[in-house]
Amino acid sequence: MNLPTPEDVVRAAERIQPWIRRTPTITINGPGARPVTVKLEGLQRSGSFKLRGALNKLMALGPDARGGVITASGGNHGLGVAWAGFLLGVPVHAFVPEGAPAVKVQAIERAGGEVRRVPGAYPEAALAARNYALSSGRPYVHAYDDADVIAGQGTAVRELIEDAPEVRTIVVAVGGGGLAAGAVLAADGRRVIGVEPFGAATMHEALRAGQPVRLAQIESVAADALGAGQAGAITYPVCAAGLDRIELVTDEAIMAARQWLWDQTRQVYEPGGCAAFAALASGLLDGDPGPIGVVLCGANTDPGTLTR
Amino acid sequence: MNLPTPEDVVRAAERIQPWIRRTPTITINGPGARPVTVKLEGLQRSGSFKLRGALNKLMALGPDARGGVITASGGNHGLGVAWAGFLLGVPVHAFVPEGAPAVKVQAIERAGGEVRRVPGAYPEAALAARNYALSSGRPYVHAYDDADVIAGQGTAVRELIEDAPEVRTIVVAVGGGGLAAGAVLAADGRRVIGVEPFGAATMHEALRAGQPVRLAQIESVAADALGAGQAGAITYPVCAAGLDRIELVTDEAIMAARQWLWDQTRQVYEPGGCAAFAALASGLLDGDPGPIGVVLCGANTDPGTLTR
Repeated sequence: MNLPTPEDVVRAAERIQPWIRRTPTITINGPGARPVTVKLEGLQRSGSFKLRGALNKLMALGPDARGGVITASGGNHGLGVAWAGFLLGVPVHAFVPEGAPAVKVQAIERAGGEVRRVPGAYPEAALAARNYALSSGRPYVHAYDDADVIAGQGTAVRELIEDAPEVRTIVVAVGGGGLAAGAVLAADGRRVIGVEPFGAATMHEALRAGQPVRLAQIESVAADALGAGQAGAITYPVCAAGLDRIELVTDEAIMAARQWLWDQTRQVYEPGGCAAFAALASGLLDGDPGPIGVVLCGANTDPGTLTR
Repeated sequence: MNLPTPEDVVRAAERIQPWIRRTPTITINGPGARPVTVKLEGLQRSGSFKLRGALNKLMALGPDARGGVITASGGNHGLGVAWAGFLLGVPVHAFVPEGAPAVKVQAIERAGGEVRRVPGAYPEAALAARNYALSSGRPYVHAYDDADVIAGQGTAVRELIEDAPEVRTIVVAVGGGGLAAGAVLAADGRRVIGVEPFGAATMHEALRAGQPVRLAQIESVAADALGAGQAGAITYPVCAAGLDRIELVTDEAIMAARQWLWDQTRQVYEPGGCAAFAALASGLLDGDPGPIGVVLCGANTDPGTLTR
């Protein structure tokens, strides 16, 4: 298998640079007044880091993408691919599970993606998408288990390090492991910690089993972003070799972190985008070397659920 | 009268630096795909730039502030003074009009400010505050017509220029003119444009009359932030001498800009914080030399009014 390398992240950064926003990195006093460096990736086009991997994949495909690409996601990945397609002039067919959040599905359509609703949950949508990709001969863009996608996601951490080289520990949320694997490749020797909700502990279970396993159940307020349910054949070995560890956080900690970010920084993040910050706020990183850098990775959420 | 100078902004920047966040400056494609450089001052402690002027004033007062300070504001200035008092250990009494937004008044209290509600509107609250300041012998912190406050606000524009020296036109919202006057002092030769709602055209009317005049009526979606209603004895001459001009925007343009900022950058700003951006989005700056730098200056708002 072709595992992505740190050099792939460097190449991805050069490749996608014309199309992405270089999102800000800022150091603030976090909960408990401990300084924390946050990468505000909610400011990214499409509202999450997923645009990075999607762009890198479509640009790597080059002429093979011209006839259009297929993906499965009613969430941030679908949005990222739809935006990448819009920017590069590539038609995008997004297969979404019928229960996908309307706000994200509509945003995919606004970005020009052709949405196909599939009865069932994410696995059914993914199966339909793969079948359509095979029958149509168009490339399938996996949400995380793809070397180009992983290298693209790593560029977010690469920028964080460029802007704040003093950071010694990097913390990212884990769904299927695309961002975490990219962080491992970009970290340049720094400690990398993945964070998952207790109810969607995909990489945690994979590390325990020694291989990717399918979660029997996913139950988390961040499930729409971190509910992959199975680590990838590529993301797993990269994370197993390179992550310092996985920390698990409660839904309550995630929502408290989300409220803190609004109260103290006027930033709106979706639950999955706050999971890494929740680990910090919960004191789970108190023993790790600072400064600590946290990627706030997605902001596609209804801000009306934040009050005060 | 002692008018503030560009050197006062430099001194203010040094003085308040330990207490403020250096908020991010980022260049994005704005409406119509024209690049625009935005200073994200909603990320400032207290949720607006007002902390800067308040800190500079309290630090300039030094020992004279130790017994506490008085201010009048149920909005961002009150919040800024309350935060400055919290950070510096100075008791703050904030006189607020009875109709002030609950969200801001509660935030003043959370920051440790002692709130006194005054029947009537802002002028009544300001009168009560001044009387109390006189009778108690404590300093009164004016929301804008104060050389130290103006110099403090100018530090936001100074940072924007440090981070994006290529900016040639600077655009700020105008309420009483504190930020605008600070921008004039910080601009280092660049063009500075002030923006007001049609229904709160305080500086526009002052420039027309050749002196500060009291608006008979204030009616704008941004009134809680930009509704000063009369330019200051200090802010007026600085703005009259240094502003290129005032542009006026409709409430509809302000709310459309607010929605655009959420849709395209996942940033939440209050109406007053979007007024300068609304001028850009309305095409009112199409003839001005770019890059254009816009200060997004306040984010104390109910995010539930943003949908999609």
